Amino acid sequence: MSEVQHQQVEGRFDPYPTRTPDLHQPFRRIDPVVHARNQHRWEGPLDEVSLSRYERDGFLWFEGFFSHDRVAPFFAELAEMARDQTLMDSEQVIRDPGTGELRSVFGMHEISANFDRLTRDPRILGMVRQLLGSEVYIHQSRINDKYGFKGSGFDWHSDFETWHAEDGMRRMRAVSASLMLTENNEFNGPLMLIPGSHQLFVPCQGETPAMNWQSSLQAQRIGVPSREVLARLATHGGIQAPKGPAGSLLLFECNTLHASNENMSPWPRSNLFFVYNSVDNQLEEPFAAPQRRPEFLGARKNVGQLTMHDEYPELAGQGVRPLS
Amino acid sequence: MSEVQHQQVEGRFDPYPTRTPDLHQPFRRIDPVVHARNQHRWEGPLDEVSLSRYERDGFLWFEGFFSHDRVAPFFAELAEMARDQTLMDSEQVIRDPGTGELRSVFGMHEISANFDRLTRDPRILGMVRQLLGSEVYIHQSRINDKYGFKGSGFDWHSDFETWHAEDGMRRMRAVSASLMLTENNEFNGPLMLIPGSHQLFVPCQGETPAMNWQSSLQAQRIGVPSREVLARLATHGGIQAPKGPAGSLLLFECNTLHASNENMSPWPRSNLFFVYNSVDNQLEEPFAAPQRRPEFLGARKNVGQLTMHDEYPELAGQGVRPLS
Repeated sequence: MSEVQHQQVEGRFDPYPTRTPDLHQPFRRIDPVVHARNQHRWEGPLDEVSLSRYERDGFLWFEGFFSHDRVAPFFAELAEMARDQTLMDSEQVIRDPGTGELRSVFGMHEISANFDRLTRDPRILGMVRQLLGSEVYIHQSRINDKYGFKGSGFDWHSDFETWHAEDGMRRMRAVSASLMLTENNEFNGPLMLIPGSHQLFVPCQGETPAMNWQSSLQAQRIGVPSREVLARLATHGGIQAPKGPAGSLLLFECNTLHASNENMSPWPRSNLFFVYNSVDNQLEEPFAAPQRRPEFLGARKNVGQLTMHDEYPELAGQGVRPLS
Repeated sequence: MSEVQHQQVEGRFDPYPTRTPDLHQPFRRIDPVVHARNQHRWEGPLDEVSLSRYERDGFLWFEGFFSHDRVAPFFAELAEMARDQTLMDSEQVIRDPGTGELRSVFGMHEISANFDRLTRDPRILGMVRQLLGSEVYIHQSRINDKYGFKGSGFDWHSDFETWHAEDGMRRMRAVSASLMLTENNEFNGPLMLIPGSHQLFVPCQGETPAMNWQSSLQAQRIGVPSREVLARLATHGGIQAPKGPAGSLLLFECNTLHASNENMSPWPRSNLFFVYNSVDNQLEEPFAAPQRRPEFLGARKNVGQLTMHDEYPELAGQGVRPLS
């Protein structure tokens, strides 16, 4: 592997070159992890301990963030979606490569007013604005389902690497909020993360094929770090798989390496993902792909700043501490 | 599903009919789990608490049973085996269906004097004879390797179901000893078991194809319980995945349902398996397969009773307590 040179792509400076013919060494990110330390305007619910932990690990885990009662109503809506044949036949719905069962539904916040409202929860939005140091919008939302004994895993990857290469997201200034709609336990394929991996950008080898997303959302082959780099990072930082009841929340930095294994249990695993991007980091043309991806994978139209709803006014400014 | 009728197979009584055209209900085993309660002749190192736990759960876990120093020398021998091209090209070596890497090597105790000696360890052999209430021999031995980021999992199954159907093992009177040659942790695909599942025999649907073992050892399709039955058993008994350092030992009853997931970590997972069968339970003709399997999968020749070696004479009769 050789040192990567920052590249001019069609006249543009590319801070994170990837999908190159040769394999290049990982390098330290040029973007901060917490974008608004000590800025009065972006004060929020996370205290200094939490901010430091996020900076170190690349994620924060909030066990039982929402009550079971708050999460339960979403299931009725999901069941209704599954009966919507037009939606189920659309591009937004990804099937499991092994079983043909539902794997992901994209654009959740546009399909459902309830999910849209959830993206504007004052506590989540407060933390996200604090971490990104700006107003934010939803870059992508999805639900990942793994049925009992059925759901395939996801190989190790950085979301940012794909969003940079295929969607033209220039800088690392996005955060994913993953809300557990079911219990996540040791056996139903919980999300695994490599703490500290977000500090490095891992360039990936190999050109992005046209319309790559049509296969990559089932099983990713391009944009996967080399085994050698993964081994080095996992041996250095370890692997963590946060577990907890439905309603638990994970915030993870866009460049944190994560994966998940198959669901070996009878217990379904449903996780909702909202990706918040800074309004100052809106998408350009893809840095390493022949064309833009569809709107439901990387928003370009509906990118106005999110406004908190006022369901919990009493919580505004109240401290939120991760439990692990 | 209907109640199964115990069948006459070619004039033989079959206590555990399986691989039938229709799906049948699970039924309670007719064999004891601990075969020699309070029999002076088969006294051994397990105390009543351990015996009761084995009877209830179908397995016993001994964290750090052997020291690291005791286990380490086996690696040199394994590396030597991997360089033996004649062995590597033989039927005894099973490759990973995804990667082509080494998955299993059968007949370990016949290939290596060291592994053979290990099968006759006084502590292990003492416990096994106590559980089976008889002299014992090695029905099968193997090593299962999962390389880092590579090893595929094993779907849920009862070993006895296969040994009964394909090898003609009539009764449930065998126990597997699995010795961890590497650490088994949450991320490298540890063995998972359903506690209490050994109490039921789960008939499986579908005829055994000729030479089934040539594909089933890579990925099992016949002899897999239905999802519905698995869900019922796992919801009732839960799932456990014992974890610990190299040298840890698992004893599990031949009918306990077990599985393992993919290795998502950079850390290899190597587990050694010795299957002890009672000398009073030697193989007949297969109960539900067109022909016998090879000797390395189900011993018929070398079935004389095992004799303890005397490396640890001071341990004979000493109590051994599982740590979990």
